[in-house]
Amino acid sequence: MTETPHPLYAKHADTLARALTAIAERGYWSAYPESPSPRIYGETAAAEGEAAFRSYLGGDFPLDQPGAGDRVATEASPFGVDLGVSYPHAAADELIAATAAALPAWRDAGPQTRLGVCLEILARLHANIFELANAVQFTSGQAFVMAFQAGGAHALDRALEALAYAYAEMTRHPGTADWEKPAGKGDPLRMTKTFHVVPRGVALVIGCNTFPTWNSYPGLFASLATGNPVIVKPHPRAVLPLAVTVKYAREVLAEAGFDPNLLVLAPEAAGEGLASTLATRPEVKIVDFTGSTEYGDWLEANARQAAVYTEKAGVNTVIVDSTGDFAGLCRNLGFSLTLYSGQMCTTPQNILVPAEGISTDQGHKSFDEVAAGIAGAVGKITADPARGVELTGAIVNDGVLTRLDEAAGVGDVVLPSREVTHPAHPGAVVRTPTIIKLGADRAETYGREWFGPISFVIATDSTAHSLQIFRDTVGERGALTAAVYSTEEKVLDAAEAAAVDVGVHLSCNLTGGVFVNQSAAFSDFHASGANPAANAALTDGAYVANRFRIVQSRRHH
Amino acid sequence: MTETPHPLYAKHADTLARALTAIAERGYWSAYPESPSPRIYGETAAAEGEAAFRSYLGGDFPLDQPGAGDRVATEASPFGVDLGVSYPHAAADELIAATAAALPAWRDAGPQTRLGVCLEILARLHANIFELANAVQFTSGQAFVMAFQAGGAHALDRALEALAYAYAEMTRHPGTADWEKPAGKGDPLRMTKTFHVVPRGVALVIGCNTFPTWNSYPGLFASLATGNPVIVKPHPRAVLPLAVTVKYAREVLAEAGFDPNLLVLAPEAAGEGLASTLATRPEVKIVDFTGSTEYGDWLEANARQAAVYTEKAGVNTVIVDSTGDFAGLCRNLGFSLTLYSGQMCTTPQNILVPAEGISTDQGHKSFDEVAAGIAGAVGKITADPARGVELTGAIVNDGVLTRLDEAAGVGDVVLPSREVTHPAHPGAVVRTPTIIKLGADRAETYGREWFGPISFVIATDSTAHSLQIFRDTVGERGALTAAVYSTEEKVLDAAEAAAVDVGVHLSCNLTGGVFVNQSAAFSDFHASGANPAANAALTDGAYVANRFRIVQSRRHH
Repeated sequence: MTETPHPLYAKHADTLARALTAIAERGYWSAYPESPSPRIYGETAAAEGEAAFRSYLGGDFPLDQPGAGDRVATEASPFGVDLGVSYPHAAADELIAATAAALPAWRDAGPQTRLGVCLEILARLHANIFELANAVQFTSGQAFVMAFQAGGAHALDRALEALAYAYAEMTRHPGTADWEKPAGKGDPLRMTKTFHVVPRGVALVIGCNTFPTWNSYPGLFASLATGNPVIVKPHPRAVLPLAVTVKYAREVLAEAGFDPNLLVLAPEAAGEGLASTLATRPEVKIVDFTGSTEYGDWLEANARQAAVYTEKAGVNTVIVDSTGDFAGLCRNLGFSLTLYSGQMCTTPQNILVPAEGISTDQGHKSFDEVAAGIAGAVGKITADPARGVELTGAIVNDGVLTRLDEAAGVGDVVLPSREVTHPAHPGAVVRTPTIIKLGADRAETYGREWFGPISFVIATDSTAHSLQIFRDTVGERGALTAAVYSTEEKVLDAAEAAAVDVGVHLSCNLTGGVFVNQSAAFSDFHASGANPAANAALTDGAYVANRFRIVQSRRHH
Repeated sequence: MTETPHPLYAKHADTLARALTAIAERGYWSAYPESPSPRIYGETAAAEGEAAFRSYLGGDFPLDQPGAGDRVATEASPFGVDLGVSYPHAAADELIAATAAALPAWRDAGPQTRLGVCLEILARLHANIFELANAVQFTSGQAFVMAFQAGGAHALDRALEALAYAYAEMTRHPGTADWEKPAGKGDPLRMTKTFHVVPRGVALVIGCNTFPTWNSYPGLFASLATGNPVIVKPHPRAVLPLAVTVKYAREVLAEAGFDPNLLVLAPEAAGEGLASTLATRPEVKIVDFTGSTEYGDWLEANARQAAVYTEKAGVNTVIVDSTGDFAGLCRNLGFSLTLYSGQMCTTPQNILVPAEGISTDQGHKSFDEVAAGIAGAVGKITADPARGVELTGAIVNDGVLTRLDEAAGVGDVVLPSREVTHPAHPGAVVRTPTIIKLGADRAETYGREWFGPISFVIATDSTAHSLQIFRDTVGERGALTAAVYSTEEKVLDAAEAAAVDVGVHLSCNLTGGVFVNQSAAFSDFHASGANPAANAALTDGAYVANRFRIVQSRRHH
């Protein structure tokens, strides 16, 4: 059990050191360039990545895992591309037996070796980032640049962030310590103490449809680095990004001399309920989940043998009080609503505006003018289909379309959703955002999540009333993001106080190139764990500390 | 919400800094002298502390708390002393309303101020350590020196340890950070980010009968320091030590300008079930508990709105393979069994010895000779009643006596338990330990906890068999401690590997002044959270990290 670090630790020690600094400072840092430019990634990377992606289509995905030999193919691309990838399918027993058997050697290798191997996995994934981006794009419906950024570079940054916290937490105590207690006139009592970092058991990651890598990587790498083998259960409609991830990770694990079954893919057949089967197995001690409130709550209630980390639905809210840059407010919010057609868990839904209007740098703006301003910004961004689709991407599934239809009838439509024909992918299902006016008394409508390109501009009695609605809805339903616009310091402070009370992250007066639905790894926390939308944050100490235990031995010396 | 540290922070900054060093090094350190000597505490401290204790007897305990005005008196001293202290009794609603109202100002005071106030509370308790020790002695049945050490100095050390972790965890991120992201040829994006530490809500600490302070302080101070008001629900038979604690803490809180209802005592009437009522209230977000497996499991299953930290029953095990100091082995184990009449959650219960005997520095010792050697050591330590009672203390409750009666019939009694008349307290219920031989096939008997002065010497086929029994019983029932005696490095390593697998702390070849049932704050972890005996450790990062969240706001600058 003595740790001699694998050479991969030394190879990546500088990256780890920089990441450890970043999580202690929480300023700006990124390890993986977010621009897919050939100047950064080389002239051939994009084409090679796309070719690698295409090579998987219509065939058996190459993953040599334990299992009975049957295969499943459950994906349907929002872009209308025929994916037809089939994945090896195994039973829960097989997956758990294989992963559990891989645990002891990985545990005994120690934190430094595990970090070296995990960092090499990130490097391998980064070397194949275009392949990953294509897989994310065509399963999630994200436009390419977003898939490259959120699904590639930013996902890798979030993974590295989780690795840094895991390493910091595992090494906050020394591996051994000498203890010497004075004993009056006699010899002191002397002992050598050894502190073993031991994993909790098998970990399960349950992926989502919209952000298959970004939302899965933090839990996956936090669990793996702390010694837990990981079973990755992808969303049935977004298997490929995690299959690619598991494939490269298993290659690295094997090359480093470890059992590749430390990481296995668990794709499920339709209606199989594999996540529930796995999540409630006694061997499974950690579950990470992103998805519906209903299923997240089920996991919290039923996977009681495990530490369960959930990110669920919420009601993201914007409080508009006044602004010194009305055009910037409209542009900024318009962009936030349009990006990935509002299918981010961080997209604003409720925009609270006093019925009497607001004061701005352009003079007084009525409630309707504020709503029209935001709607106009969305309209402008999406006017040209060729450019618009590079922001909206495609609609991830039929549930969003049903909700769009329903939303059209609930209030006064300021901006209707439009169907757009994707110039490059005629089979893609593309919809622009809708914006709907509601009275403040319509809490039964705006008080729950309408996932997709659906936002409400809500007429309130005053900013104080807006703050009360904010407290009520976020307190009851949770939120991942909140924003406030005001020229008054005391309004900003009141919004911040309310945000602290209901436990949601707040962005103030965003009118430029930072958007409320974007969070930067190493600086912004994503979710807080302090309201019903999530029970944990990406990433803080609490997110990693419970993924392992310390077991001590002591001997006289 | 800007933090200007209270002057108490500066007053105690050196202590905090030293404690932070200690938790990072985990070598020897202690802040509170464990010797009750007048040379350390002054000539009058002992008498003054005893007088303060006696002043409470037969009267209304002075605690000005919210509540209806009725009182409860539920204690019965194991020493036969008539306590008769009555405590103010409040309903759950009153306690929760009062504590919840105290939260915002305490939260907004920030980590440094909270630490300063909490450290002042420890200083105040330390200034009254003899009073505390008397309260612990006469409610728990511990002998005075042990009550002073475990219930006073060591409890304060454990509290300080928890405070240091809490502070480290709250301050691992800066309060504010500047973020500047390059934006191509344009101006960089710039934001100032503020990271608020927010508590989870109201915390509940459920105390135990045997170690009312030692087991309660870590959770109490970890929760309080991270911003959560705390309701302390003492064991009905050990209220006074926590009443004294709450009294002094409330004085300090008020002196520092905070609402004393940040800490309230919740004594319960017989059969009231107040712990269950409080633990399942939606406002209660943290529960710390020490006690039975049955109730700990109930809390974990039912207090689902809260983070629940439990320490429960276990089967502490000693593996005897061989020794280079047979006399030391017997002395050391004999002392461990005798201390507080085996009523420590860390006392060894199962001593696994090969049926064919062991090799020692005194030549081969048969199984019976090993059993007799340990029994002889206990007999010698307890031979003189006056000296014996200063180790055994008194029997905490009738449940232990019932178990002692039952144990006498389950196997071959090597050492019978004796009744002892306490020279100073004739009403005290004192029993010496019993040791019973069992075959390895008697797992239905030794495979569960027999809390009290009851130990089994179990004849195994071999040390390999002993290790298998160790894995089986600890894996199934858990343990807080384990020990191994062997002259063979490979046996020690095998025991350590088994201990890591089943997640229990191991002590090797203790033959001197360190005992398996004692753990030193700042160095030894108490419980691991990696086996069924506890779901958390005292104290590590995981113990504190989930007691608060970070809520962020960001503004352009």
